[in-house]
Amino acid sequence: MAFERIKFLPLVLLISLAIPTMTTAGDPDITSDFIVPSNYFSVPGNFFAYTGMRKVLGNITNTFKVTKASMAEFPALNGQSVSLAILQFPAGGVNPPHIHPRSAELLFLVDGCLEVGFVDTKNILYTQSLQAGDLFVFPKGLVHYQFNSNKKKSATVISGFGSANAGTVSLPGSIFTTGINDVVLAKSFKTDVATIKKIKAGLTPKA
Amino acid sequence: MAFERIKFLPLVLLISLAIPTMTTAGDPDITSDFIVPSNYFSVPGNFFAYTGMRKVLGNITNTFKVTKASMAEFPALNGQSVSLAILQFPAGGVNPPHIHPRSAELLFLVDGCLEVGFVDTKNILYTQSLQAGDLFVFPKGLVHYQFNSNKKKSATVISGFGSANAGTVSLPGSIFTTGINDVVLAKSFKTDVATIKKIKAGLTPKA
Amino acid sequence: MAFERIKFLPLVLLISLAIPTMTTAGDPDITSDFIVPSNYFSVPGNFFAYTGMRKVLGNITNTFKVTKASMAEFPALNGQSVSLAILQFPAGGVNPPHIHPRSAELLFLVDGCLEVGFVDTKNILYTQSLQAGDLFVFPKGLVHYQFNSNKKKSATVISGFGSANAGTVSLPGSIFTTGINDVVLAKSFKTDVATIKKIKAGLTPKA
Amino acid sequence: MAFERIKFLPLVLLISLAIPTMTTAGDPDITSDFIVPSNYFSVPGNFFAYTGMRKVLGNITNTFKVTKASMAEFPALNGQSVSLAILQFPAGGVNPPHIHPRSAELLFLVDGCLEVGFVDTKNILYTQSLQAGDLFVFPKGLVHYQFNSNKKKSATVISGFGSANAGTVSLPGSIFTTGINDVVLAKSFKTDVATIKKIKAGLTPKA
Amino acid sequence: MAFERIKFLPLVLLISLAIPTMTTAGDPDITSDFIVPSNYFSVPGNFFAYTGMRKVLGNITNTFKVTKASMAEFPALNGQSVSLAILQFPAGGVNPPHIHPRSAELLFLVDGCLEVGFVDTKNILYTQSLQAGDLFVFPKGLVHYQFNSNKKKSATVISGFGSANAGTVSLPGSIFTTGINDVVLAKSFKTDVATIKKIKAGLTPKA
Amino acid sequence: MAFERIKFLPLVLLISLAIPTMTTAGDPDITSDFIVPSNYFSVPGNFFAYTGMRKVLGNITNTFKVTKASMAEFPALNGQSVSLAILQFPAGGVNPPHIHPRSAELLFLVDGCLEVGFVDTKNILYTQSLQAGDLFVFPKGLVHYQFNSNKKKSATVISGFGSANAGTVSLPGSIFTTGINDVVLAKSFKTDVATIKKIKAGLTPKA
Repeated sequence: MAFERIKFLPLVLLISLAIPTMTTAGDPDITSDFIVPSNYFSVPGNFFAYTGMRKVLGNITNTFKVTKASMAEFPALNGQSVSLAILQFPAGGVNPPHIHPRSAELLFLVDGCLEVGFVDTKNILYTQSLQAGDLFVFPKGLVHYQFNSNKKKSATVISGFGSANAGTVSLPGSIFTTGINDVVLAKSFKTDVATIKKIKAGLTPKA
Repeated sequence: MAFERIKFLPLVLLISLAIPTMTTAGDPDITSDFIVPSNYFSVPGNFFAYTGMRKVLGNITNTFKVTKASMAEFPALNGQSVSLAILQFPAGGVNPPHIHPRSAELLFLVDGCLEVGFVDTKNILYTQSLQAGDLFVFPKGLVHYQFNSNKKKSATVISGFGSANAGTVSLPGSIFTTGINDVVLAKSFKTDVATIKKIKAGLTPKA
Repeated sequence: MAFERIKFLPLVLLISLAIPTMTTAGDPDITSDFIVPSNYFSVPGNFFAYTGMRKVLGNITNTFKVTKASMAEFPALNGQSVSLAILQFPAGGVNPPHIHPRSAELLFLVDGCLEVGFVDTKNILYTQSLQAGDLFVFPKGLVHYQFNSNKKKSATVISGFGSANAGTVSLPGSIFTTGINDVVLAKSFKTDVATIKKIKAGLTPKA
Repeated sequence: MAFERIKFLPLVLLISLAIPTMTTAGDPDITSDFIVPSNYFSVPGNFFAYTGMRKVLGNITNTFKVTKASMAEFPALNGQSVSLAILQFPAGGVNPPHIHPRSAELLFLVDGCLEVGFVDTKNILYTQSLQAGDLFVFPKGLVHYQFNSNKKKSATVISGFGSANAGTVSLPGSIFTTGINDVVLAKSFKTDVATIKKIKAGLTPKA
Repeated sequence: MAFERIKFLPLVLLISLAIPTMTTAGDPDITSDFIVPSNYFSVPGNFFAYTGMRKVLGNITNTFKVTKASMAEFPALNGQSVSLAILQFPAGGVNPPHIHPRSAELLFLVDGCLEVGFVDTKNILYTQSLQAGDLFVFPKGLVHYQFNSNKKKSATVISGFGSANAGTVSLPGSIFTTGINDVVLAKSFKTDVATIKKIKAGLTPKA
Repeated sequence: MAFERIKFLPLVLLISLAIPTMTTAGDPDITSDFIVPSNYFSVPGNFFAYTGMRKVLGNITNTFKVTKASMAEFPALNGQSVSLAILQFPAGGVNPPHIHPRSAELLFLVDGCLEVGFVDTKNILYTQSLQAGDLFVFPKGLVHYQFNSNKKKSATVISGFGSANAGTVSLPGSIFTTGINDVVLAKSFKTDVATIKKIKAGLTPKA
């Protein structure tokens, strides 16, 4: 009998694994105060709190670093259409060109200086030099980057997003490290396969 | 002739004042990269930047203070469904119970300690004690408050919203300082008119 | 064997209880004609009917009363973005200041007279005296109230909402009966703890 | 000079006529408390009230009659995603098959009896016999009708919609009175042109 | 033991059948890149491909034919708010008046000629004669039809929809083949029951 | 007097130029049947037709070519949340990696063969080899490409989008031809400035 119970347990697990995919639909409009994951039977106050960022501020490393509080890290955001991220730039650090497919980004530069820019669908580049306390908005779905051109001072950003899961498409990564055919890339970038291979090698971590 | 031109100028002003009310529709979904106010003929990079918060961080006053970067202060947010606010609490400061009608609020406590809470539509109160680096989400349209119970240290919050204009309904203010009839309020709060008049007086700035 | 079947039955119940939380997402936009709860195997015509209000009209009690037909009472409304409520005011009855977080309210006064009002996010109060046959719209997420100032005649309202679950935040209740700390409330309403305690006592039903 | 002013007045009218077409976008989501038409300079409380239905209830005529309070009659509904209508059925009266393209309909039968039905996109008919106090929901975009089969008693309905302008497509009217080619209709309804002409004649008011 | 396993298997099936109804919510806005059905454990590239239309183009039959690629046929469209259909008209073929409740239709006439029309909610008919290469948009929720008046040449259409499940309400079918009461229809179309019975008979396939 | 009229004419032009920026809000949800540009006084049937693609099909050139029917070319699409495009690939032609910020793309390969792929936000590449008659869906906001690897045969695609203005961000163009600083790009792609300059040169048309 005990053995049978074990045999059916995987069924429970299988179901609870399958269900969360449903809760991904419908960011902006919900018909409840909040969405409780199916494995909760009551909701404590700390369900609405996230403590995973306590040690992030102040710890600038020597490479650019993003720390997110989105639906994946903080499930209570599901259905609330908002998330935040901390961006930390060492001196000279760059956040490579990327796109957020599901939200605009409202950047708040809390410390340091930053060169920022985005490109609209007419291929016009909009740039700005920001100082501490400045905000900048990158519209939804457009290519943008940030660069700390200062050679001595780090920079810290807190960014807000109008989606619980804005998503990030890193362009160097998406284009050159995922296995897209060299010929497709060479033709696309109007260069030769050798140049593509060189860029791919530079972006791929060595074993 | 010159006089006539003057007479018709107000017409232009009248029209350009009237038009912006139309651009308030449709927060989450736009069919352009961004929305340019009708009085712009080209868009410089600084249209997407907001410098009005440069001097806010660090200047804690002795009363609770909110500084917003929403559509009203920063027009480029129109149609981008995101905004931010800085909340500054002196020691013992409180942000009275209020509601944001158009967005959830994702609070990030960058400095200090904070007691926070919200009430859902079933009248259940969810509370939490936050320390620096913690986040808390207040679902859309629900009563919530923050309180810095620490008697010596100030607290600073950066909050993100999933609307360009989340709006704020301050409940002491909405209920007791706008002229709602004393009898309605006395019946609503199951008290007498004298108590209502006392609360109203306390909340109304003296001449 | 019969015993084992019983042991696994709770699993079925547990799952069917958990699933409805998913159907709360996405009020305005659905990709089916209607949403059938997971425990239905075919949909009879009466799934789309609700008979729970048959005895409501005409029965005015001596306290203000709301009877809702929303998603909770009438599951076929799920995904249809509409609900209705009947509001019944005895002579002198009041519907205390409250907020619907997920919809505007369109009030239709079918019988009697009513003083109504709402406060916008700029703290401006809009009021109106309604007579039978009048309509009034309370915008989404704003504080509003209704008051039957007539001392002899009752009043009856049918209100429409653009959400299957508009939700109600009763402000006296949310603020004063859910356990929010007395000090927070005293500071918020710029009064003393004694006054807060008095209001709390008046709003709390006695044992 | 006075003459000139007159000459330019039409310009003002022309502009104020043209502008309202813009305010039709974005029913469910707005970024303001409410939308004020461009020709308003301040908003009185009665902007949110509609008195055009005062004399409707109680006046049953001998043909089926719909009285709407939607955005066209009541401009304050713009952006609030809700509207109402009164439906009045004399004994034996019918509301012919029709569709609301922009909202479900939640019918509340306040008086009398009614046979109702709708057809889903799989061509399944769902019907119900309603008595006074019953509600019925007709999902968005589907063919539906109501019929007062009682030969002596009238029936009255108050219906709610989750759009400021649900719209009505009357099917007999749309199909047979708008000038669609007889051959197209004969082929569509698998009948002859004579039958189409007969139905058209019956539905067209005589001179 | 083996027998017991069989007894509980239906539970698994029952659950996996029930769950997909939840994924129907929230067409326009999702918070993930795509929605994977709960019975997938990894997603191959061919999940995003649909091969069911390979043999459709070029095979014009002697009756009007629609072939859809919507959420039902192609599950990867769930949450992507887009679908396509091929419409094939033999010489003289007609697509009877119908409505798509969840999307506008953008028709592209790839081959042949077509008479098209739609009726708005003010009962105005808009018609156009299209030639190969032309596009026409039928707004959401309105009655429309297409007719190949050419007596020798077939016509082929590829239509795009802004919903994964636009849905189709065929008006001859919805009104006359689903069992709506003859009296309701006779009153609605201002004709006699005999005419209704005749139309019903013509539209009903014989045994 | 006639001279004065001329002086005020520019005012009319100025206003009609300014107004179209308002119609960019609110793709998915409108509260009217369709949106008429402010300079129309009545709407003829051909407002809903677009003839600009008549000569496109069949004319394969020796470079990859996109022809769009979106809101810019076809104003009646405003508010209808749908558009189409024709993609024509010569033998060996490639549509370089790009992103549509406002819609998924549903590709229908009407002629030829095509290698397609997209990369999700977890940097997983999904590829497929398509033959004539196949469909493939590229989710909203993700990097994707198409490649006609066949050395002799051209390929033709008709793609549907769930937005009146899906927008296109061409990645080679956005990143390398808009003036983003060489140092930012070199750091982003982990290569040297010389390689960046070489790619830029290849992508920039010569004078």
